[in-house]
Amino acid sequence: MKKLINHVDTVLSESLDGFAAAHADIVILGADREFVRRRQPTKPGKVALISGGGSGHEPLHAGFVGHGMLDAACPGQVFTSPTPNQMLAAAESVDTGAGVLFIVKNYSGDMMNFQMAAEMLDRDNATVIVNDDVAVENSTYTTGRRGVAGTLIVEKIVGAAAERGDTLSALKDLGDAVNSATASMGVALTSCTVPAAGKPTFQIGPDEVEMGVGIHGEPGRRRVKLTSADEIAAELTGAILKDLSLSRGQEVLLLVNGFGGTPQLELYLMVTAALKVLQGAGVKVVRHLTGSYVTSLEMAGCSISVSAMDAARLALWDAPVHTAALRWGM
Amino acid sequence: MKKLINHVDTVLSESLDGFAAAHADIVILGADREFVRRRQPTKPGKVALISGGGSGHEPLHAGFVGHGMLDAACPGQVFTSPTPNQMLAAAESVDTGAGVLFIVKNYSGDMMNFQMAAEMLDRDNATVIVNDDVAVENSTYTTGRRGVAGTLIVEKIVGAAAERGDTLSALKDLGDAVNSATASMGVALTSCTVPAAGKPTFQIGPDEVEMGVGIHGEPGRRRVKLTSADEIAAELTGAILKDLSLSRGQEVLLLVNGFGGTPQLELYLMVTAALKVLQGAGVKVVRHLTGSYVTSLEMAGCSISVSAMDAARLALWDAPVHTAALRWGM
Repeated sequence: MKKLINHVDTVLSESLDGFAAAHADIVILGADREFVRRRQPTKPGKVALISGGGSGHEPLHAGFVGHGMLDAACPGQVFTSPTPNQMLAAAESVDTGAGVLFIVKNYSGDMMNFQMAAEMLDRDNATVIVNDDVAVENSTYTTGRRGVAGTLIVEKIVGAAAERGDTLSALKDLGDAVNSATASMGVALTSCTVPAAGKPTFQIGPDEVEMGVGIHGEPGRRRVKLTSADEIAAELTGAILKDLSLSRGQEVLLLVNGFGGTPQLELYLMVTAALKVLQGAGVKVVRHLTGSYVTSLEMAGCSISVSAMDAARLALWDAPVHTAALRWGM
Repeated sequence: MKKLINHVDTVLSESLDGFAAAHADIVILGADREFVRRRQPTKPGKVALISGGGSGHEPLHAGFVGHGMLDAACPGQVFTSPTPNQMLAAAESVDTGAGVLFIVKNYSGDMMNFQMAAEMLDRDNATVIVNDDVAVENSTYTTGRRGVAGTLIVEKIVGAAAERGDTLSALKDLGDAVNSATASMGVALTSCTVPAAGKPTFQIGPDEVEMGVGIHGEPGRRRVKLTSADEIAAELTGAILKDLSLSRGQEVLLLVNGFGGTPQLELYLMVTAALKVLQGAGVKVVRHLTGSYVTSLEMAGCSISVSAMDAARLALWDAPVHTAALRWGM
C-alpha cells in the first residue's frame, strides 16, 4: 500500500487537523474531532443541516460545511459510519432551536446510526435519505439504492433554502424532492485501497471496468471490457435518463464527478460525451459541475449525475455558498 | 492503458470542448481550439496575461482563465508545448493595446515557443519565467530549474495586479518577485501514463517513491523507500526552506498540491505534516491552498510550495477571482 500517511490509525485525525488549519476561516473541529462545524455560529431561527458518513469521500462532507450548505459534518473512519454520539454532539453544537435536518446517504450503517441519533435527540429533527444511485437495488452495505454524488446537489439546494429561513418541514420536503429528481451512476477503472485494509478493495483486470460501481468499490451491474468514453457515457447517462423519465426540454444540472484518481482531462472529456447523450434526448443542461467531489479515495473512474431543475431550485443552486470545496457568490 | 477516452488523437479536443461547455459563463475557445480565453473581452488599458503549456496538468492553465487571473491559456497536446501560432492567436484575441505578459514555465519547448511568439508579436510584451522547483538543476525537459505548482501563485498575484491596472513593466517585475519568493518540491508514488505513449512514463517499485519528481514524471533527487508522511514533508519542506532562507516570523502561503491521483484525505494530512516543519522553523502560514491544481495526469503524489508574502501580495492573493478552478470574492 502506497499512501502519504504516518500510521493507519491516525490518518483521519491528522487529515482533519490539516483540513481545519487550511480552512480555519470557515470551519472548526469539535473538541474530540467528532464533527466539523462552521466557525460562525448558526444564526437563531435557522434550521441546522448536518450530514456525515465514512471518510474517504472527500471533499464530501466536511468540504461542504459553510455558509449556504451544511452546518456540521460528522466524519467516520474510512468507509465506516460515524457514531450516534458524533451526530448528537454536532446537533448540540449547531442547533439554535429551529431544529436539525440530517442528510444521510442510504447505507445500512449510516441509516442505523443517524436513526439512533434522531431518536435520542431531544430537539426537533427530520431526516432526508439520499439514494440517487440507479445502478443496483441492494448492495454490499445497502438495502435499496445507494446514496452517491447526488448527495452534494441535495446539500447545496437544501442548504441555500435553510439559509433563507425555510422551516424544518419545508426543508425535509425539498430534500426529498431533489433526491427524487436526481439520478447517478458510476464506473470504476481501478479499485481503491482502504488504509486499514492495506490492499485493494476489489480485483479488476487491466482491460476491465466495473459498470455501476458504488463509492466504496461495491459491485455494480456488470464487469465489462474497457470501451470508449462515448459508450461508457451512453450506458451511464442512458440508465439515468431511464430512471428519471424526463420530458424533452427539461432543464437539468449535469455533475461529472471524479472518484479521486481520474484526471480532469478525462472528466471534461466525459462532459462532452454525456452532453451528446443528453442533447440527443432533448434534455437541456443549464448548470454544470465537474470535478472530484464525492470520491472513493484514489479510485479511478467517474460518475454522472443528472438533477432535474426548476426555477426555484436553480435559484437555490446559484445562491451564494462559501465552503472549502464549493464557493461562489461571496 | 486504462483511460476514459475515445481515441488518443482526440483526447485534448474533446476535453477542451467539455471544459468550454461546463464553464461557458467564464470562457470561450478559439475557433480552432488554439486557446481558451475569457468570454468577457479584456477591458481597454488592462495588460493581457497569457500562459500555456502542455496539457495533462489541469486545471493549470485553462482552469485559471477568468477575472483576476489569466486572459488566455494555450493548451499544447499532453506534455507538449503549444505552438507559437497558438500564442500569437491568443495575443491577437485578448490584447487591447496595453500589452501582453506571457507567464511561462521553464521547460525548453515552452521557452523556445513563447520566445518565438514574443519576437513575432507586433505588440508590447514581456515574459515572466517560473522556475520554482528546488529539486534539481537541469532535467529531462529543462535547462535550469523547472516551473511547477508555484506557477499558479504567480498567475493569481500578477492576475490581480493586472486587474487593478498595473503596467506591463510593473507586472513583469511583480511576477519575477513572486517567482523568486516561491519554492516547491514534489514526490511521486506512482507514474502517470501519457495517452499517446500508452504505458507508464517511468517504472517505480511497490515500496519506492521518487523524491523531487517533476510534473511530467521527470527524475527528482533520489529514489527512496516509501517512508512516513512526516518524513516526506520534512524533506520537501526542508529543501524549500533552505532555498528561500526565510526569516523567523515571515508570513507565507502554503500550497499542498496533489498530482492527480492523490486523495484529499492524504493532501490534508500532508498539510498537518508540513505545518509542523514550518512552525518549527518559525515561519507563519497565513494563507492555505490545498488541492490538485498542477497535476501530472493521474500520478499519485504531491508537491509542497511555500511563497513568502507581504501585505501587498496578500491583498493581491485575496483579491476577487472567478475562474473554473479558483473562485472567491465574487
